[in-house]
Amino acid sequence: MDGFLFIFFIVSSVLLSATSEASKCSINGFPLLVRNISELEQDNYGRAGLSHITIAGSVMHGMKEVEVWHQTFAPGSRTPIHRHSCEEVFVVLRGTGTVYLSPSSHLKHPGTPQEFSIFSNSTFIIPVNDVHQVWNTNDHEDLQMLVIISRPPVKVRI
Amino acid sequence: MDGFLFIFFIVSSVLLSATSEASKCSINGFPLLVRNISELEQDNYGRAGLSHITIAGSVMHGMKEVEVWHQTFAPGSRTPIHRHSCEEVFVVLRGTGTVYLSPSSHLKHPGTPQEFSIFSNSTFIIPVNDVHQVWNTNDHEDLQMLVIISRPPVKVRI
Repeated sequence: MDGFLFIFFIVSSVLLSATSEASKCSINGFPLLVRNISELEQDNYGRAGLSHITIAGSVMHGMKEVEVWHQTFAPGSRTPIHRHSCEEVFVVLRGTGTVYLSPSSHLKHPGTPQEFSIFSNSTFIIPVNDVHQVWNTNDHEDLQMLVIISRPPVKVRI
Repeated sequence: MDGFLFIFFIVSSVLLSATSEASKCSINGFPLLVRNISELEQDNYGRAGLSHITIAGSVMHGMKEVEVWHQTFAPGSRTPIHRHSCEEVFVVLRGTGTVYLSPSSHLKHPGTPQEFSIFSNSTFIIPVNDVHQVWNTNDHEDLQMLVIISRPPVKVRI
């Protein structure tokens, strides 16, 4: 259920609100080139503890090569263990947490996931197709991140 | 001169320090997956008022589809008027400034550049090939931004 909801969230993240957002966020619609992130629509796509904002999206803004998201994970919330065939870069804006990464995920028997602490003003890159999970392991603080992916919209495999 | 330096800076932004940075920033080099942005090497590539950090780069980290930079412009400093055939997304982390964008730059006689205020926690997208310029028009504060581009390394036309 958890995994299903996540797939649903990722694949349709820019689709659900595309109609209502398209006009007010269009990059072709001067004078609205510059947008205040704190005024953009948030959604959790049925995933408790998540707040997702599409800063630059394929459907909403016509992006063809990159997407940029602003995501906030409440204490204890996390992504499922998943992979996708795109490049992904994280920039942690606030909070702390843990990222789990299974190197050599393309092999039949990938290695044991390795665990890394993430923190405000840190960054990490998830290699294409490597299995990973991001987890707000802090009991008190939100974990807020910018997420950059290539080849939008992302297709996730759990 | 200004333009030349900017081309030099952009095209070689990840090349200059690649050798020394490669080992300590490699995404394949566990356990250094997570990096503290404030400890990453900064450079200005001969451009006064600029501080550039490559968060995820093509040479330094093997990125093939996206690059992510952290750039700080001192008061009064700016990019030249330029264009490039990649998608570009800005996220303003701190400060204020102005972005100039010439819509329909692909036409022989593009329209007059339009001017937009940018501010902390704002975002904007530069369409592929549209002529633009980012300027820290604030006399007192730095302008700090995350810059995301596709198709690295960027090839700039002034």
